[in-house]
Amino acid sequence: MGHCVTTKAGRITGEGMTREHLEQIRDDAEIRMRELRDLGLCIDMSRGIPAREQLRLSDALLDDALIDPPISADDVDCRNYGGQQGILDARRLLSPLLGVPEAQVIVHGNSSLALMYECIALAWRKGVPGGTAPWSAGEHGATFICVVPGYDRHFAMCEDFGIRMIRVDMLNDGPDVDAVRRLVATDPSIKGMWCVPKYSNPTGTVYSDEVVKELATMPTLAPDFRLFWDNAYAVHPLADVDESLANLYEACVGAGTTDRALIFTSTSKMTHPGSGVAAIGASEANIRWWLDAAGLRSVGPDKLNQLRQARFLRSPSGVKALMEQHRLLLKPKFDLVSHVFERHFATSGLARWTSPKGGYFVSLEVVPGTAAKTVALAQSLGVKFATAGSCFPYRDDPDDVHLRIAPSYPAIEDLALALETIAVCTLKSAADELLRQARR
Amino acid sequence: MGHCVTTKAGRITGEGMTREHLEQIRDDAEIRMRELRDLGLCIDMSRGIPAREQLRLSDALLDDALIDPPISADDVDCRNYGGQQGILDARRLLSPLLGVPEAQVIVHGNSSLALMYECIALAWRKGVPGGTAPWSAGEHGATFICVVPGYDRHFAMCEDFGIRMIRVDMLNDGPDVDAVRRLVATDPSIKGMWCVPKYSNPTGTVYSDEVVKELATMPTLAPDFRLFWDNAYAVHPLADVDESLANLYEACVGAGTTDRALIFTSTSKMTHPGSGVAAIGASEANIRWWLDAAGLRSVGPDKLNQLRQARFLRSPSGVKALMEQHRLLLKPKFDLVSHVFERHFATSGLARWTSPKGGYFVSLEVVPGTAAKTVALAQSLGVKFATAGSCFPYRDDPDDVHLRIAPSYPAIEDLALALETIAVCTLKSAADELLRQARR
Repeated sequence: MGHCVTTKAGRITGEGMTREHLEQIRDDAEIRMRELRDLGLCIDMSRGIPAREQLRLSDALLDDALIDPPISADDVDCRNYGGQQGILDARRLLSPLLGVPEAQVIVHGNSSLALMYECIALAWRKGVPGGTAPWSAGEHGATFICVVPGYDRHFAMCEDFGIRMIRVDMLNDGPDVDAVRRLVATDPSIKGMWCVPKYSNPTGTVYSDEVVKELATMPTLAPDFRLFWDNAYAVHPLADVDESLANLYEACVGAGTTDRALIFTSTSKMTHPGSGVAAIGASEANIRWWLDAAGLRSVGPDKLNQLRQARFLRSPSGVKALMEQHRLLLKPKFDLVSHVFERHFATSGLARWTSPKGGYFVSLEVVPGTAAKTVALAQSLGVKFATAGSCFPYRDDPDDVHLRIAPSYPAIEDLALALETIAVCTLKSAADELLRQARR
Repeated sequence: MGHCVTTKAGRITGEGMTREHLEQIRDDAEIRMRELRDLGLCIDMSRGIPAREQLRLSDALLDDALIDPPISADDVDCRNYGGQQGILDARRLLSPLLGVPEAQVIVHGNSSLALMYECIALAWRKGVPGGTAPWSAGEHGATFICVVPGYDRHFAMCEDFGIRMIRVDMLNDGPDVDAVRRLVATDPSIKGMWCVPKYSNPTGTVYSDEVVKELATMPTLAPDFRLFWDNAYAVHPLADVDESLANLYEACVGAGTTDRALIFTSTSKMTHPGSGVAAIGASEANIRWWLDAAGLRSVGPDKLNQLRQARFLRSPSGVKALMEQHRLLLKPKFDLVSHVFERHFATSGLARWTSPKGGYFVSLEVVPGTAAKTVALAQSLGVKFATAGSCFPYRDDPDDVHLRIAPSYPAIEDLALALETIAVCTLKSAADELLRQARR
């Protein structure tokens, strides 16, 4: 059974465990570690990367018939320059995923991360609609709210721009909105908040309707506050039924905060990760803002690839059918995580983990002070699976307890060995730490 | 016959023409303008865009066999994430065009303009290797040398970043290097210079070996000075023989100014403009600088498209063969420009034009004070062909004399009518202006 990983939950203390029991766990772990070392493993599962059999699901994308003729629904020759906003076919495909009318969708490039970066860079240098100055010019600097644990690349971007990061805990139904509400109401330097609202990276959390509504509605002291809504896992269930997520854009329109929402998605984890298409959905003012800047930077996106993706995925039901095939490949890997962790941790309770209903990650909570050690031990056995602290701003996990598991990439046989390695190293470092504490 | 357009040449004055002759030219132009108006033309030739028959030359790019298997020469699965520097196949293809070893080539995205933008944005925010501060933090701001006439998108980028622009004249063999040398030796705020070194936009100029050497060698007061070497027309001759351009990178290595060169190119005007691949070649320090920043922004470029381009173009000789086919399509259009302009301007000398040996543009020099008027007249007849001033920083052509002609896009029949419209409007506004001056 999965457990919720939040910083609000009580930490794992090993309370009630005898020294003998801990020593037994340690000794068993050491024996198994020696056996695993002898296997000479070399497995990298450090990032949420689709496996080769998932890539094959989209190989029909490469069929040249897909882009014949190379003319979009809005009569653009996709081979030539231009079309900064993206072709109608692609905007129409992604509009329902973003929850924004197709006229307010931009499809550009192969990376939604790049679109987010460009929004931050532009806001930093020139400000956003509704603001009075560039974010870089704020008297107290600029600040982002970061839900923890969260996505390392979001935090790295803030760090690089010198944007201060304030942590807010992830709860079962999304961020701690009470904390968020208090912060944005009192600190005018808070210009943004990172959100992965569905099957969140790394906890798998889905924001509840109430949380979405609160984020859209809450008064903010900064008039130029933005929700960076990274809906990377919009259609990525692992369970039979896809969870629903409230429409942020409509909630903002209803609350009179239309410019607050910058909604991102991409087809990277639907088709071929390196060759997907990325999109922004937002208010008319935000879209104009972005497009005005884009004209300086580029002579337009790769529209042939947009046509390819749109004709391959076809419609929301086409997307859903493809994602069901992904699910059938991913589900056994996530089941294996639960199975292996259950087997190793259920009796002792020396670790907790999430059982996400979608997305690409499992969060593992270990005994405080042992996450970095566990990573190092596993790496010494040939399993690279996480960077301790990476899910926190400045890579600082204060209690050294959180690890992100990304089971998608390895073949299932490798995954079984890797997970066992992780579990055994977790037990070894937990037992060592608790025995050390007991000696003091 | 073509003439060199430079701001050093004497202006067109109509000296020695009688009032009667000018009135005759004006009256003839007005008659022809009425006839052209009756045709109801609607032709846009305002930018250097390849024509549809040029796009067809690369339609074999769309063949799915090209990316089977989707594995690069350096064993990367091109469908998946990663590979920030670009696959070996693409780096190997573009290395000779850039004149830089393949290990120092980055292939990323579909737009070399975007690569230049990212260099400027990064330099602005963080500085470049060898510098002591971000370009935005300079005591006297940052300044770029802009060769005029030049490429409007370069100048627009500087304007957007608040980078001051200093003009230097284009001469027959490249920029006025005496002026450049004096400027960079005395003004520490000069951080960069825009160069389109081969078949320059819009004059068609090819930088001589001496000019390239001087730019590589000249001492600069700013230690973090960069040549933005936009080699967009590296393999784009119109004449039978492709002109040669000295290797900037090697010249910089020889002069001990290795970090000075940021060399850009793309396959946009070789294959499909919207779906080409773009590249930077530079010193190891510059490449590291760019890649470190790219990791924050993106999960990697579209490597499938890189594979497609590399396998389609194959080698320098493959590129050359394709470019010969482009040349055969473009040459008649440029010949038509010469033919129409010769017919209209040879007797009166009321305009001068270039006969470029490569690239996409012809420069037209008109009677001072009549360029904007000529554009407006042509537009009133349904021919959109230029924006007056666009080839100058801040769109300011002080004498209002320069117009850029981009003959590539229209079908040849349309082009004939468009060029005649431009010529007739040029004569009308020239005669009006000279008669006005004579009356004073």
